[in-house]
Amino acid sequence: MQIGILGLGTVGTGVVELIEKNKNIIAKRLREEVHVKKVLVRDLNKQRTPLVEGKITDKFEDIIEDEEISVIVEVMGGEEPALTYIREALNRGKHVVTANKEVVAKHGKELFEISAKKDVNLLFEASVGGGIPIIRPMKQCLSANEITKIMGILNGTTNYILSQMTEKGKGFDEALKEAQMEGYAESDPTDDIKGFDAARKLAILSSIAFNTRITPDQVYTEGIDSISQSDIQYAKEMGHVIKLIAMGKKHENSVEVSVTPALLPKDHPLASVGDTFNALMAEGNAVGPVMFYGLGAGKMPTASAVVADIMETKRSNNGSKLYCTCFNHFDVMDPGQSHASFYIRLRAFDKPGVFAKIAGAFGKNQISLAQVIQKNIINGTAEIVIVTYDVPFKNLQEALCEIKTYKEQVVEVSTVIRVEGEHK
Amino acid sequence: MQIGILGLGTVGTGVVELIEKNKNIIAKRLREEVHVKKVLVRDLNKQRTPLVEGKITDKFEDIIEDEEISVIVEVMGGEEPALTYIREALNRGKHVVTANKEVVAKHGKELFEISAKKDVNLLFEASVGGGIPIIRPMKQCLSANEITKIMGILNGTTNYILSQMTEKGKGFDEALKEAQMEGYAESDPTDDIKGFDAARKLAILSSIAFNTRITPDQVYTEGIDSISQSDIQYAKEMGHVIKLIAMGKKHENSVEVSVTPALLPKDHPLASVGDTFNALMAEGNAVGPVMFYGLGAGKMPTASAVVADIMETKRSNNGSKLYCTCFNHFDVMDPGQSHASFYIRLRAFDKPGVFAKIAGAFGKNQISLAQVIQKNIINGTAEIVIVTYDVPFKNLQEALCEIKTYKEQVVEVSTVIRVEGEHK
Repeated sequence: MQIGILGLGTVGTGVVELIEKNKNIIAKRLREEVHVKKVLVRDLNKQRTPLVEGKITDKFEDIIEDEEISVIVEVMGGEEPALTYIREALNRGKHVVTANKEVVAKHGKELFEISAKKDVNLLFEASVGGGIPIIRPMKQCLSANEITKIMGILNGTTNYILSQMTEKGKGFDEALKEAQMEGYAESDPTDDIKGFDAARKLAILSSIAFNTRITPDQVYTEGIDSISQSDIQYAKEMGHVIKLIAMGKKHENSVEVSVTPALLPKDHPLASVGDTFNALMAEGNAVGPVMFYGLGAGKMPTASAVVADIMETKRSNNGSKLYCTCFNHFDVMDPGQSHASFYIRLRAFDKPGVFAKIAGAFGKNQISLAQVIQKNIINGTAEIVIVTYDVPFKNLQEALCEIKTYKEQVVEVSTVIRVEGEHK
Repeated sequence: MQIGILGLGTVGTGVVELIEKNKNIIAKRLREEVHVKKVLVRDLNKQRTPLVEGKITDKFEDIIEDEEISVIVEVMGGEEPALTYIREALNRGKHVVTANKEVVAKHGKELFEISAKKDVNLLFEASVGGGIPIIRPMKQCLSANEITKIMGILNGTTNYILSQMTEKGKGFDEALKEAQMEGYAESDPTDDIKGFDAARKLAILSSIAFNTRITPDQVYTEGIDSISQSDIQYAKEMGHVIKLIAMGKKHENSVEVSVTPALLPKDHPLASVGDTFNALMAEGNAVGPVMFYGLGAGKMPTASAVVADIMETKRSNNGSKLYCTCFNHFDVMDPGQSHASFYIRLRAFDKPGVFAKIAGAFGKNQISLAQVIQKNIINGTAEIVIVTYDVPFKNLQEALCEIKTYKEQVVEVSTVIRVEGEHK
């Protein structure tokens, strides 16, 4: 099997190294050897692994026009030119293996249509959860189930930051800086900390789980940059941890998709997923809850998924492909309609009648309070933490809008976080 | 797709019910409907689900000779006549889906050879871990990895018993009785509590992970019936929990396979797997650690795996089967050669020189002690708990043999349990 690789960054180098490192076991399992024939790079003069000597090119044509290359591996990342290259490769009847969540999440429909027409594979296990088997197990092993819910930690950078804040008591900025020093966060960390990366992965997984096309712009997305050490501490007091949770839920005729920080009870299976680890829980109407756990990013874990997909292009060569399965057309639920229990931290003036005023705004919007903590009086203001029962998000938003107008009573609404698995 | 089912016990009934319950989504995903055409039962007069009306037979020939039936689903359990039926079905060119760990573990080699010769599928995802995707992810998604270690909780009955002993303080007999009342344990629980069931599953998983044929009789197996509430309490004091752990390790030219109780540190990912849940961790040389978690048994979880395999027989119809991959021939390591840290609980007479004598036996066999607890003095005897550093099992056995001869000093050696993840 001759393959062409587009991109020789961290993941591309990992793919080349893994194919060399495990070549014997790969050849035995596949009953065929895998050879890297050509690699597309931007800069021909940069120092590269000796494994690609004589194989690099800066012209896409050199690869796409090579008749011996049957599999194109796209590991450049970013929307363009990756999308153009993948489209062209499929149109030329070559199998495509990609780790590109952005392209798959945004352009999956178009690309799957081409791959079906040309009867070639479009495989993307590495686009979600790094090396953790998730997409194939969902598509194949759980195929007899109606999936009712998926819920996971899909971004290692934010999980590292939140773990550092929880375990080491660090502030958000300090934890982010450390993540950047450790190489877990980019110099521009926006995609991670704002939840955009997790939203792309959730779009891919929800499309598979609920058999309906979901794109990243349909995912209600909040980041973790508003979470402070105070929130971590309050959560701890209440027996919870804060995680960035990607969630998809099937309702009767709609699908709810969100990426938001959430308080999880300490004994929730996702609560103990630390550091840069990822995990996905899926609930099927036959299998019940299942969880997949492992390293969600990194050179060799991601290469593990890419190379397995390369090997699968051989097995799936005879009409036995993983088709696009988005045969449903469910609406995406308006985030205001979604129900949850919420944690709200706010600062108010420490004087009589203030709490009554705030409580009144919740009451008017049919919001019952499950828990109230008031402390940390500083300069005449008090910190108030409120946990609501399960309420429509819209009602909460209206109550908070109103509370923010109480300039005589309320200094600021500091944080609003969903609470999972309680107060129903 | 027309299928024939052998056996209509719990799992068989679950398969029939699931095919009916999710028929729409199954037909859309498969692009074909699945029909149960005939079901083999022992007793034609027994009350059955109305879903099989007009479909039951007590003659295997009615099913095997039906040309329309392309997939035989074996969910009878037990070695015979299941083995004979599976062999015959494969020989007749029918795909076989089975949940039968005993047959697969003991006769996998022969059956795989027939399935390869006849170019039909032999699928058995349900034989390990109920509905949890494990076998396919290992065979496909991790195929670019050399697997160095697998470690899991593969028996729900024993995990339920140990969880009850740990969380509710119950004794072994009481917890077993409760498991039987809840339907989690058979009236003859030998296969579960002695570790035989887990050993069969480990044989299957090790064969896949290390690409070398392992049979249940090669697995060093200990049960949980010697574990007492004292052991649970000592483990707790040391920050550990006791689990029945199935473990496979790749050494240079051999494979170590064992099912034994083990002390796990509380923060180990397998430590929080409670009740009847199962989980498998696998370590790959690229992917690092991954874990699969879910319900390891039960009617609908098991049916979930069986029906997914039925659906896969269509996809894998064109030479794209999951072949047997036992192309290596590794020896199984003599259990005496395996290394571990051990917890030993014994009772000795409370008089001078006793501990020196015991410690001497360990020292003579090159065993260093990491931890010693002595308490519970009753009628002149003291309970002593010793945790060793990492030692060859053979050395420990020799030391214990010698200690058992110290009739003047030692009343009994009560328990010996492996300790995972520490004292290296």
